[in-house]
Amino acid sequence: MQPVAQLQAALENLEGLEVELPTWGFANSGTRFRVFPEPGSPRSTEEKLEDAATVHRYTGCAPKVSLHVPWDRDPDYGAMRQALAARGMRVGAVNSNTFQEEDYRLGSLAHPDVQVRRRALDHILECCEIGDAVGAGALKLWLGDGTNYPGQDDFRLRKGRLEEAVSEIHAFLPSSMRLLIEYKLYEPAFYHSDIQDWGMALLLCQKAGEHAKVVVDLGHHAHGVNIEQIVAVLLDEGRLGGFDLNDRKYGDDDLIAGSINPYQLFLIFNELVGAGLGSGLGAETARAAGYMVDQSHNIEPKIPAMIRTVMTLQEQWLKASLVDREALRAAQDRGDILAANGVLKDAYDTDVRPALAGWREARGLPADPLRGYLDSGEAEARVDARKGGDAAGWN
Amino acid sequence: MQPVAQLQAALENLEGLEVELPTWGFANSGTRFRVFPEPGSPRSTEEKLEDAATVHRYTGCAPKVSLHVPWDRDPDYGAMRQALAARGMRVGAVNSNTFQEEDYRLGSLAHPDVQVRRRALDHILECCEIGDAVGAGALKLWLGDGTNYPGQDDFRLRKGRLEEAVSEIHAFLPSSMRLLIEYKLYEPAFYHSDIQDWGMALLLCQKAGEHAKVVVDLGHHAHGVNIEQIVAVLLDEGRLGGFDLNDRKYGDDDLIAGSINPYQLFLIFNELVGAGLGSGLGAETARAAGYMVDQSHNIEPKIPAMIRTVMTLQEQWLKASLVDREALRAAQDRGDILAANGVLKDAYDTDVRPALAGWREARGLPADPLRGYLDSGEAEARVDARKGGDAAGWN
Amino acid sequence: MQPVAQLQAALENLEGLEVELPTWGFANSGTRFRVFPEPGSPRSTEEKLEDAATVHRYTGCAPKVSLHVPWDRDPDYGAMRQALAARGMRVGAVNSNTFQEEDYRLGSLAHPDVQVRRRALDHILECCEIGDAVGAGALKLWLGDGTNYPGQDDFRLRKGRLEEAVSEIHAFLPSSMRLLIEYKLYEPAFYHSDIQDWGMALLLCQKAGEHAKVVVDLGHHAHGVNIEQIVAVLLDEGRLGGFDLNDRKYGDDDLIAGSINPYQLFLIFNELVGAGLGSGLGAETARAAGYMVDQSHNIEPKIPAMIRTVMTLQEQWLKASLVDREALRAAQDRGDILAANGVLKDAYDTDVRPALAGWREARGLPADPLRGYLDSGEAEARVDARKGGDAAGWN
Amino acid sequence: MQPVAQLQAALENLEGLEVELPTWGFANSGTRFRVFPEPGSPRSTEEKLEDAATVHRYTGCAPKVSLHVPWDRDPDYGAMRQALAARGMRVGAVNSNTFQEEDYRLGSLAHPDVQVRRRALDHILECCEIGDAVGAGALKLWLGDGTNYPGQDDFRLRKGRLEEAVSEIHAFLPSSMRLLIEYKLYEPAFYHSDIQDWGMALLLCQKAGEHAKVVVDLGHHAHGVNIEQIVAVLLDEGRLGGFDLNDRKYGDDDLIAGSINPYQLFLIFNELVGAGLGSGLGAETARAAGYMVDQSHNIEPKIPAMIRTVMTLQEQWLKASLVDREALRAAQDRGDILAANGVLKDAYDTDVRPALAGWREARGLPADPLRGYLDSGEAEARVDARKGGDAAGWN
Repeated sequence: MQPVAQLQAALENLEGLEVELPTWGFANSGTRFRVFPEPGSPRSTEEKLEDAATVHRYTGCAPKVSLHVPWDRDPDYGAMRQALAARGMRVGAVNSNTFQEEDYRLGSLAHPDVQVRRRALDHILECCEIGDAVGAGALKLWLGDGTNYPGQDDFRLRKGRLEEAVSEIHAFLPSSMRLLIEYKLYEPAFYHSDIQDWGMALLLCQKAGEHAKVVVDLGHHAHGVNIEQIVAVLLDEGRLGGFDLNDRKYGDDDLIAGSINPYQLFLIFNELVGAGLGSGLGAETARAAGYMVDQSHNIEPKIPAMIRTVMTLQEQWLKASLVDREALRAAQDRGDILAANGVLKDAYDTDVRPALAGWREARGLPADPLRGYLDSGEAEARVDARKGGDAAGWN
Repeated sequence: MQPVAQLQAALENLEGLEVELPTWGFANSGTRFRVFPEPGSPRSTEEKLEDAATVHRYTGCAPKVSLHVPWDRDPDYGAMRQALAARGMRVGAVNSNTFQEEDYRLGSLAHPDVQVRRRALDHILECCEIGDAVGAGALKLWLGDGTNYPGQDDFRLRKGRLEEAVSEIHAFLPSSMRLLIEYKLYEPAFYHSDIQDWGMALLLCQKAGEHAKVVVDLGHHAHGVNIEQIVAVLLDEGRLGGFDLNDRKYGDDDLIAGSINPYQLFLIFNELVGAGLGSGLGAETARAAGYMVDQSHNIEPKIPAMIRTVMTLQEQWLKASLVDREALRAAQDRGDILAANGVLKDAYDTDVRPALAGWREARGLPADPLRGYLDSGEAEARVDARKGGDAAGWN
Repeated sequence: MQPVAQLQAALENLEGLEVELPTWGFANSGTRFRVFPEPGSPRSTEEKLEDAATVHRYTGCAPKVSLHVPWDRDPDYGAMRQALAARGMRVGAVNSNTFQEEDYRLGSLAHPDVQVRRRALDHILECCEIGDAVGAGALKLWLGDGTNYPGQDDFRLRKGRLEEAVSEIHAFLPSSMRLLIEYKLYEPAFYHSDIQDWGMALLLCQKAGEHAKVVVDLGHHAHGVNIEQIVAVLLDEGRLGGFDLNDRKYGDDDLIAGSINPYQLFLIFNELVGAGLGSGLGAETARAAGYMVDQSHNIEPKIPAMIRTVMTLQEQWLKASLVDREALRAAQDRGDILAANGVLKDAYDTDVRPALAGWREARGLPADPLRGYLDSGEAEARVDARKGGDAAGWN
Repeated sequence: MQPVAQLQAALENLEGLEVELPTWGFANSGTRFRVFPEPGSPRSTEEKLEDAATVHRYTGCAPKVSLHVPWDRDPDYGAMRQALAARGMRVGAVNSNTFQEEDYRLGSLAHPDVQVRRRALDHILECCEIGDAVGAGALKLWLGDGTNYPGQDDFRLRKGRLEEAVSEIHAFLPSSMRLLIEYKLYEPAFYHSDIQDWGMALLLCQKAGEHAKVVVDLGHHAHGVNIEQIVAVLLDEGRLGGFDLNDRKYGDDDLIAGSINPYQLFLIFNELVGAGLGSGLGAETARAAGYMVDQSHNIEPKIPAMIRTVMTLQEQWLKASLVDREALRAAQDRGDILAANGVLKDAYDTDVRPALAGWREARGLPADPLRGYLDSGEAEARVDARKGGDAAGWN
């Protein structure tokens, strides 16, 4: 393919990237040591959705939001759905919360006490109902379940409890929704996490049913783990549900996607774009994947950080779309290591910012959304408008 | 249970631990920088088996050996089997080698070229035949397959090649053998390993068939990964095949088991002993697990290091057998974290060496096998007897 | 030395271990996701000191407390000192806090703004004064300073700011106090921490002056780092100030010391005991080291967890005191790897609990302090007595 | 500065990057499992230097070579120096080897036996003499010293032995040479390395004298360690000697620089370029730093891999030279996190390949050196010319 045609095709492939913004990403958050509040933070779900809509308004490619229950409980989900639709937006996933109540000190769905498990399960089933009411595409399960000390509980009993619960959730799931199961190496549990890695998440999905899929949070792995390979394996199995996008240098740092290791983000997107351009189960799975941002903007302003994030995601997605897949396969087939690696390097080294600026301007968006937002005066207006009241946080 | 009865029961449970010694563990080995040869090293498979038999003679609990093809090729496997039987020993696994020939530069069963894959497969099928002839219980597959650079090959194509090959091996497997599949995070491949973790090994096993099981090498994980939980999950799934026992501080260091983190070895054995004392699939799986030592004695004398290893394995196994499982479950059920953890701590803190010395003496073994060997003059005699010839190594 | 004499000498060496309990270790703490409150938690510094005194009362070897400013601000430090003395206790270190105020969003002593740096410095100088008033032996500096994104600030400028501040603190330090500087790989900063490792802490100490020493928190290292070697190096340089004791499997998990890797705790104590038994700068440094517990009992009861901790520290200290140092040196000198390692293993494998029970009973303490506390009814009485009011936390 | 002027200035800054090629980088190397030989590999130091000269001929920016003793022993160093000069090249460092002889099983300069230490020291002093004869700028010390098991040797005694040896080397050093000391977390030693990290290397340098400097190998750190910060600290202390350039995902993988995490390479170069453009000790230190490649091309062709490496180094150096340092400082000073980070991102996102092609063409070099070499027929000619004889390896 000629470079110009290649760029054109790559730009068309941008439609495949619909970023999903979590409501809690606009609320105050921090570390166990301190939450630094930001002036102008949203005080209600409505204001969080307004912030998400602002990001979509400037970038044109973040039409989905992720809700969190109970933080985003609402008396009228139909109205919420309509209000979103009026902005060209919709709900992606509903995220349950079974880690912030006194009962969950020792776990939720894997808790030794059947009554606590029942309570957690009921909460999650309610989230399914909310999802149905608000038109969500998925129910997302991140559990804080685990233990802090050897012997604290029995690994296999806990595994059995999880299997039972997840199967019940799958059976209850509205047909329009998928069940997304997230894994995490550690935190808040520090000796073991019940869903330690993708393998444990996949086992749960296999037992729950065909609508259960694995969610990959980019910050939830041990050091050295090859994430793009996990993505490829899950695509191949038809079990990749989507992503929690962020970046990290150490633990689950929840930094801006691509801010620490942008090449890794490119390599992950390379698997998705490559699969999505193909056919079969892998292609179907790739095209259905969700792209939620899951970041904690502890010290930087949240809306600008989100705009920067969405821009970075587009940049890496476009670079991945520029990979010359015929040349790549040919080099792989002849065992030409440097040439095969060079195909990826060529795409990655390309400066895609001018092409993206053009793409945006053709859609009536600012060529540089971050600059556009910062110059708009909206941030200052937001601070003025949101004086008083209690800013939303993780509680 | 009273302490004395508990100790008695624990000592009886020692029979569950049959250590398997790899022939190559007695040969010279080292790092990429240097192999330091040891005087008296075996020069043939016969001498390697003699060394393994020596370890069994002093410890009384290492009746199995692991063979490696081509290093241990032999004109008469029936005779080898009989010679072992005469020493009260038998072959555990036959280990294939598809990482040391020129053809395997880009992989073996996952290689892009079908002819290389065929060659590797034929080698492995021959290993099955050898296993049958020598009365082995398993065929063990550790692959060095992987890539060193992003883009070098296609993850999903390689996965498909592996699935195909492993299924063919499983179909060919003699009914008396199991197929053991090992995973490893990295080395010799440095960008991706085709079987990166237990999840990928398990997927291969699921597709191959019911006799395929996962092997856990204690040095093949990323830092922080909870190994004892992986063991519990594989037990629960009926897919734990056994272990490559060793210890490490950094990468796949292949140090003496229990020399860096003895408590972790105890926690792993705690899962196995706990499951083995129960019933159902987990118990059956635990009882069938293999316990191969996979160490690289780069600078310390090999037979003494192996004796020390076997002693350490017995110590931790006995400690794990001392865990008061009723008290443990009761504490777990009532959510008493410190008490549950304390049950493990109590067993681990017990000095089991006197009881083991008694167990040995009752069997006519030296109370301290390492001391016994060092004082026997066997080491010196071995050096004298093995002058001349080429010492065995990893080639 | 004969075993009995060796045990006797080791028991006498127990006097070298004076554990320091942090007041905040008895307050509610948790993760960024949730703080689970414990009934009976202290509501004031007085109650925190009461809890620390309880731990000392049951164990007989935790005569020091660590204060935290501003959490432990008090109108009368002389009275606090006397109250402690009446319980046979004293203040070890005063810990400053420059990470929980709005101003410190971008750092404290390394902040780009000189006014923020001044404010932080003034706070720390005040901590010196408090230390003087309360008879503390040290001022301890743990900074949360760092950045979250590449480019956020200039490494070298920040280093210069820290050097300046630390020198001013050292100059201000009362002559009875030492300046303890702590390092940490990450958290709360996620791209870089200004005092990332022991090397950076040591550089600051070298520039500040001779009373500046490095503090080793067992949870503040990257995976694989050899901590006992760092301890040995700092001892040899006369720059080891002491420890923040805890354990971890992943990040800075702040679990109970010895609960995850007890052998590592033994190896660290082995360096200290070995140095302390010698002579010269290393011995002097070892004997002056502080042993503060720094744990976060997120889900387990705090006083029992602290008692368990102190018991574990004594156990490992006693084991380290049992190391046959002559035999160790002899084996090292002749290059006998297994024998040298075996000397450590022999000491570690010894069950020291009976000897410790005897040591306690001879002092009128319960043979099992944890059992003693749990059976005493004190915990229940504490819950009853502390109803109402606001429990202390990290704020 | 205007973009064009900025690019011009950045291109001029390219002169600051003189890559140093190690002779052993062209010899066969591999893992402990297998060395895959490459046809056309050099059979002598002369052929290795020819290969290095080829890389310089195609790239124009690799005028230095690194020698290794004993691998590159030569009867006439004056002639070697002249032959290099005739190609516009010179020797950077002479690298000693005290890890491949039988005597060094337990270490070299830190060995318990004074005779072994003396032997190692004599070898290193001879390397100084060779360096003097060949006009080298530095003596480089990488030690494999360490232990494999706890207790094997005494940390502090070994530290003292190293200090003594390094001081003697420093005293012997010709005035035209610097002493470069390398650190490494692990391998070939697996329990502890005597120079575990930059802090230990720095301590040795401080004691040895002012010409002793620390070498940073990009693959010698624990996961998560912030390398660019270490570089900044060493620059600030005037103790950065230079680099061993490569990349890694897991351990000391010795992959092509920038192939796994190119952004990290950029961030490191950003520190060097930034310091080099300033004044004072940091600037002087930055300008004197050496840039040696230290890679192990296990499966890819070596000369092309080296050309790719040099091109990548130039790309990242040029990007680092494009950083708008005034804007960066301004954003840092006002605490504008996203803007400061954005300045780095802007430079990094720039596609510098066209500018580099122009720079090369202006010097009569191929615009794409890798393409140029591959199309030249030189590789095939080399294979033909080097038939027979023994290819060089790591022995």
